[in-house]
Amino acid sequence: MARTYREAGVDLAEAARAVERITRAASSTLTPAVLGGVGGFGGLFRFDPTSHADPILVSSTDGVGTKLKVAVALERHGTIGVDLVNACVNDIVVSGADPLFFLDYLAIGDLRADVVEEIVGGVAAGCAAAGIPLIGGETAQMPDLYRGADYDLAGFIVGVVGREQLIDGSRARASDAVIGLLSSGLHTNGYSLARRILPEESWRGPMPDNGRTIGEALLEPHRSYLDEARILRRTLREADADVHALAHITGGGWEGNVPRTLPSGLGVEIETGSWPIPRIFSLIQSRGDIADEEMVRTFNVGIGLTAIVPAEHADAAVAAVGDAYRIGHVVAVPEGEPRVRFV
Amino acid sequence: MARTYREAGVDLAEAARAVERITRAASSTLTPAVLGGVGGFGGLFRFDPTSHADPILVSSTDGVGTKLKVAVALERHGTIGVDLVNACVNDIVVSGADPLFFLDYLAIGDLRADVVEEIVGGVAAGCAAAGIPLIGGETAQMPDLYRGADYDLAGFIVGVVGREQLIDGSRARASDAVIGLLSSGLHTNGYSLARRILPEESWRGPMPDNGRTIGEALLEPHRSYLDEARILRRTLREADADVHALAHITGGGWEGNVPRTLPSGLGVEIETGSWPIPRIFSLIQSRGDIADEEMVRTFNVGIGLTAIVPAEHADAAVAAVGDAYRIGHVVAVPEGEPRVRFV
Repeated sequence: MARTYREAGVDLAEAARAVERITRAASSTLTPAVLGGVGGFGGLFRFDPTSHADPILVSSTDGVGTKLKVAVALERHGTIGVDLVNACVNDIVVSGADPLFFLDYLAIGDLRADVVEEIVGGVAAGCAAAGIPLIGGETAQMPDLYRGADYDLAGFIVGVVGREQLIDGSRARASDAVIGLLSSGLHTNGYSLARRILPEESWRGPMPDNGRTIGEALLEPHRSYLDEARILRRTLREADADVHALAHITGGGWEGNVPRTLPSGLGVEIETGSWPIPRIFSLIQSRGDIADEEMVRTFNVGIGLTAIVPAEHADAAVAAVGDAYRIGHVVAVPEGEPRVRFV
Repeated sequence: MARTYREAGVDLAEAARAVERITRAASSTLTPAVLGGVGGFGGLFRFDPTSHADPILVSSTDGVGTKLKVAVALERHGTIGVDLVNACVNDIVVSGADPLFFLDYLAIGDLRADVVEEIVGGVAAGCAAAGIPLIGGETAQMPDLYRGADYDLAGFIVGVVGREQLIDGSRARASDAVIGLLSSGLHTNGYSLARRILPEESWRGPMPDNGRTIGEALLEPHRSYLDEARILRRTLREADADVHALAHITGGGWEGNVPRTLPSGLGVEIETGSWPIPRIFSLIQSRGDIADEEMVRTFNVGIGLTAIVPAEHADAAVAAVGDAYRIGHVVAVPEGEPRVRFV
């Protein structure tokens, strides 16, 4: 019979070691806006109410899906936190928000301080890259819920945008151009399917196109579009225009994400072949014999963020942002018809 | 070979049904401060910068630990979301913050819309009780990470407090009184140990003291101290005093939580027997033959929130708040000595 928490599989001493490492990682991200350091019940962030007129807090939560299983199998935990932060950053960037702070939730079966340090080190690195502090988090040891080295990781972000600067899609119109910003790979979506087609046994093997292994290609971190969204916006404002809508191509693929940023009655026509598709997608499609429609419903297929901009400014926007392509245009779509069409 | 996301265990159609139920539950919590409804990439919350002078955003994330396993085994998912919200609410209430909004992260193996509806319905109920909107969330279907009906649930809260109103423990001094507010049971901590001592086979059996089953006692929701903290504060302010520190007795028990709200050099002396201990704790202790020290390191043992107040106002505070007891006092503690002592 278990008589202590430790005998029940919860090791408070190892947890204390982990907390120490987490505190160090989080402390490295702190900014003067953070009061009280790390380790309080709540993180304290001093908000500058003069920074944005009519401030709207924009908040999102996300996980990294079963990309976790790849990290666990390959024992490479250092970038999964970067994935997490960038997935969340992109979710608020599409509203035009500036990120303010981040928190993470890590639930783990067999808690080892060195693994926790690696995971949270990635979270801290992602926060530092976004210029925001990691002001809090929870590390839960749940030996009966997570098997062996398994864990789950969720993140929470808060940002701010002035109401006048909010990007809400309302200005989009038919004939606007669609710009696509290249993704770095699968980002954090579609791994349950990808891992069936490219099973664990294949992960140490090489990618067909270069010296990387398939596992490395699968672990390629989710790209952040924070800088690119700012450049896009600045470029358009300098031409007295603005970005009409931004969509993060995440869970649900193209159909699940592009339409929800557009007014009803509008959709997009995307030109297949108008951007280079990372090799990992064609490898998955060919090995799995997956239909095109299933690919774009499950994966980003090479585009991680779409921007809807006035057509006359599209080329300038593409040139300014880099790694971007003009990939289609906005069209009127009768009710009941698909709102994303590949031609 | 899986050729679609669905064959890989991810059912987008059932997910869409779940999202519909989630949207309904979340929509019921919305307030005029929420822009754009539910279902955007980020939740949008209009912040009133005039509500608090020098506003500090207070944010916390938490889970509900392996209390989840009890909910799953008994197929009672309706209150685990209340647990989640209240665990988070209490984490920011201790800073004196007013909750603003909430987000949840639900990761699940076998996604069933009716179960999701029950879980998120509890989250929405908790939010409604706290007077805050559920402005976003993530539902991740991860068939290879969570077995069968298993799931994990994390929450994220943001609140605000004016800098002058922040409770940070700095005013605590030796001779202050410690007030304890009764917990409703285990809240969300110590379940890995509790479940070993009271295994699943026992959960449908009766508690020794009343008609409830042991499972019902284990599932008793985490109590929120939002109202009580406000009453405490108002009572003390009316006497030209203030609450000096509040501690949420959560993971890490008494030692893990009370000291971190006090300046170094101060600790508390707690009078054993000065409050009624819910039956579930004595049942766990006697059946598991657990030492007193292990009990207070793992469980709240009947007190979910401690308040440090000037001794001369302690009785008035206890009378005003209800369900509260004067349980000890603040003492000077030499470096290296335990900062929580039961006498």
